[in-house]
Amino acid sequence: MGVTPQQFAQMEARLAGRRSPASPNVKGVDRIPTPIAPTVTRILGLDPSLRGTGYGFIALEKGQPRLVACGTLTCKKDWLRSRCLAFIAGSLRDLIREHRPETCAVESLFFAQNQRTTLILGEARGAALAMVAEAGLPIHELAPRKVKLALVGYGAAQKTAVARMVQRILSLPEPPSPDAADALALALVFAQETRRTALIPMKQI
Amino acid sequence: MGVTPQQFAQMEARLAGRRSPASPNVKGVDRIPTPIAPTVTRILGLDPSLRGTGYGFIALEKGQPRLVACGTLTCKKDWLRSRCLAFIAGSLRDLIREHRPETCAVESLFFAQNQRTTLILGEARGAALAMVAEAGLPIHELAPRKVKLALVGYGAAQKTAVARMVQRILSLPEPPSPDAADALALALVFAQETRRTALIPMKQI
Repeated sequence: MGVTPQQFAQMEARLAGRRSPASPNVKGVDRIPTPIAPTVTRILGLDPSLRGTGYGFIALEKGQPRLVACGTLTCKKDWLRSRCLAFIAGSLRDLIREHRPETCAVESLFFAQNQRTTLILGEARGAALAMVAEAGLPIHELAPRKVKLALVGYGAAQKTAVARMVQRILSLPEPPSPDAADALALALVFAQETRRTALIPMKQI
Repeated sequence: MGVTPQQFAQMEARLAGRRSPASPNVKGVDRIPTPIAPTVTRILGLDPSLRGTGYGFIALEKGQPRLVACGTLTCKKDWLRSRCLAFIAGSLRDLIREHRPETCAVESLFFAQNQRTTLILGEARGAALAMVAEAGLPIHELAPRKVKLALVGYGAAQKTAVARMVQRILSLPEPPSPDAADALALALVFAQETRRTALIPMKQI
């Protein structure tokens, strides 16, 4: 599915919390409900997996998202599974202490091709989410399809499209690595959803 | 499958590291390979799950297992999943600090009825195993069937049979709770396997 430059601009505007320039409604401006001031300003997006856990910290300043830090916790193929789990947990604990997010967004339950892969993914998620929860952050789940739809306008968007959109929204010099981009996408869409539906609690796990 | 009192005595003797009284071989005693002195003397058996993680710490004294501590980390049904994961991780970290085990035995990958259950079980395992690995313990996997076979003589033994055998071997006044019994069974069979096959490394994860 292609995305026209106009659609692109609309999506960017929507994510940045501005009214779309493509549908100006200056006269009606007073009657548009004022967005509820977001109480959350620092968000951690997390995309756990055993060998490459993506993370992205963003801060909202006057409603505009800014990159704080992002990256991938990479575990080499020859590492034992237990070593990976300890590395994920320890690294994330340190990152949370450093960047002090107030909330966390993670993909909702994702089912892999087979049970073995699902269980190993579950272990990585558990190591990561336990540290997030121990730090006192609420954890919210977002469906991957919903994240892509909100960000790129297409629920089955490819990773590169997500990375490019994240790059544009956060004005980065280059697209983040795929795992980090997925994590940042979660944080960005969470920020957007919170602003839009502040009175409707999101699914917390 | 029934177990005769004689078989029961043989299993107990085998697990306790004694030669079976049912097959004395006094004459051959000098030629029986001396068991390699176990270097591991404090073992943690772990049976993770989201709502009821069983744990059991045993110590080997002159090859004889002794109960150090056991129990279940119970998470109420109305707790959020994230709260359970934080509780499992934090509690286990404290227990390991207190009882200072040298190694850990856990069930090998177990597949639940469906992917959702498998993933949730995986999260609980990940929260637990990350803390075990962070504490520097090697983690060994044992197949549930193998544990039951070694302990009760029947790979599909029921939980109550496992609990009763654990009670007998450790000379406990009553059977441990089912989750704790499963965890202690893992520790006991690990101790036995280590003694028997000290030169063959067990599967470490």
